[in-house]
Amino acid sequence: MEFGVIALKLEFGWFCMYKSILRAEEKEISAALLREVEALEPAARPLARHVIEAGGKRIRPLLTVLMGKALGCGDPLLYALAAGIELLHGATLMHDDVLDVAETRRGAPAAHTVFGAGRAILAGDVLLAACMRIMLRSRKFDIIDSVALAAAQTAAGEVEEMDNLRNVRLDFDGYMRIIIGKTARLVSCACEIGAMLAGAAAERIGDAAAFGLELGIAFQLVDDALDVAPESVTGKPVGGDLREGKFTLLAQFYLEGLPQTERGHFLRGFSQGSFSEAELRELVSRMRACGCAERLRALAGEHLLKAGRHLERLPAGREKDTLGFLLNYIKERDH
Amino acid sequence: MEFGVIALKLEFGWFCMYKSILRAEEKEISAALLREVEALEPAARPLARHVIEAGGKRIRPLLTVLMGKALGCGDPLLYALAAGIELLHGATLMHDDVLDVAETRRGAPAAHTVFGAGRAILAGDVLLAACMRIMLRSRKFDIIDSVALAAAQTAAGEVEEMDNLRNVRLDFDGYMRIIIGKTARLVSCACEIGAMLAGAAAERIGDAAAFGLELGIAFQLVDDALDVAPESVTGKPVGGDLREGKFTLLAQFYLEGLPQTERGHFLRGFSQGSFSEAELRELVSRMRACGCAERLRALAGEHLLKAGRHLERLPAGREKDTLGFLLNYIKERDH
Repeated sequence: MEFGVIALKLEFGWFCMYKSILRAEEKEISAALLREVEALEPAARPLARHVIEAGGKRIRPLLTVLMGKALGCGDPLLYALAAGIELLHGATLMHDDVLDVAETRRGAPAAHTVFGAGRAILAGDVLLAACMRIMLRSRKFDIIDSVALAAAQTAAGEVEEMDNLRNVRLDFDGYMRIIIGKTARLVSCACEIGAMLAGAAAERIGDAAAFGLELGIAFQLVDDALDVAPESVTGKPVGGDLREGKFTLLAQFYLEGLPQTERGHFLRGFSQGSFSEAELRELVSRMRACGCAERLRALAGEHLLKAGRHLERLPAGREKDTLGFLLNYIKERDH
Repeated sequence: MEFGVIALKLEFGWFCMYKSILRAEEKEISAALLREVEALEPAARPLARHVIEAGGKRIRPLLTVLMGKALGCGDPLLYALAAGIELLHGATLMHDDVLDVAETRRGAPAAHTVFGAGRAILAGDVLLAACMRIMLRSRKFDIIDSVALAAAQTAAGEVEEMDNLRNVRLDFDGYMRIIIGKTARLVSCACEIGAMLAGAAAERIGDAAAFGLELGIAFQLVDDALDVAPESVTGKPVGGDLREGKFTLLAQFYLEGLPQTERGHFLRGFSQGSFSEAELRELVSRMRACGCAERLRALAGEHLLKAGRHLERLPAGREKDTLGFLLNYIKERDH
């Protein structure tokens, strides 16, 4: 009993340490972000500020900084690269919100609802270009190429997702290809460029990229599982993916568990987008009850294990430990 | 008389030679463009093909190739860079069409009307990123930076144009800043990177960039003058800028020439976008009659003269002469 309390206190001590490391890095990243936004073409600044100030988890820039430092990078440019990755992420969010006709982003009004769709599209372009110019400062071709490739793959992944809306024939492989494209590639890139700036050996750069890829896959799997979590927990409307017609793994698992006699109704309603609000609510509570979300989280856990194996190969240190802490956070996250 | 005929024949001979040089280069550029499009992420290819196959004047890639060759570049990569610049231009067109809600582009249906606005936005992002990756192949930081900067400036120029729609206080300087941003910077960049790939001296690179900037300004001035040219000549609907509320130099010159008593009506109608179709038609024919378009062309002529002075400093050769021929084409162009 006594021992249990001590262990708990110790664990809580670690928790506080990781949290404080993350908070300190976040502060540096935010300062770098502000500097980069103020260096943008004046016409794009208000929109960039809007997107950046809406907050977010800053997962990608944190990964760049932690991975860079874990591999011995002491170059202050690391924070600029991290900010660049967040600007690129901001660009994709701005464009996503226009094409999803989303009204809010992170609880704040989406940029296009404040500034108009045209300005949001163009400001996204400015951010994309600004991100490339930040990467150029590293004078490392591999960094520039990694980011340009990730930008292209992210957009292409989103096109593929769009091409498969309401496609109930989308299978596991197709789904994985989409989430790797739209999410995991950029997370992987965020880790990779940190390692590249650190001047790490090719194998370690490979580990950093693979760590990020597995982490990104897990992140999106959990995100998709959270689609049926209560709004009171996530802060997001329930069943958003279902409404939009994304045939995620959650829907695929749900279908698998349905009796043959009920499949036709589900498939028709899904592919035609013809569910009523009452049917959607019913569907969400069935999906919650069927254990599909837990299956997604379990799969995420497998990818996090793989990520952990790549992390193991990094030199010991507090940044490595903090990356391990992030792995755990992603597994447990509920928003 | 005899001499006149010979001179005319000679001139016609030159004309044919330049035309055939341009045609040959266009063919090479088109082949390079197709290669780059087929190397894109599969999801983005149909949209890229659609935009590229719609044609266009290929002015920007021609400038890259001719400028590069004029400065002694024999590297076949020149065509890839030229194609990259056209992809970037294609990306801006795709995004422009979404935000202008334009139905057609170069006589063909605009990409977003065929594929949807979402795909058009994302495919534009893929093209932007692909352009950066093509520039990377040169392994020249100055080339990558020039293109990233031009991409940002082009988008920022368009935001500024948007911010000034129906703004009848927009003055000459404001107008120039907008057309330099949205058009001339990219034309300048197209010339500059050709010179950079050629490994030209800093002063020649400066001449190439300045040549492109003046040419780009002239190009846009003529474009804005063509807004009141008959559709039978240009192939574009008359008065598009007027309808959209762009207070171009054409409108500014027209306002200058208006008697004080008529200004109030014009300014009100313009700033509120409240002209009837009949009033717009009347306005177009008045603008045609007032000589404003000729004033714009005269101003374009001045910028082309400046461009010519930068061109003079380039080594003699057929590419230099062809660039001079292009100068003349832009002055006279009617579509």
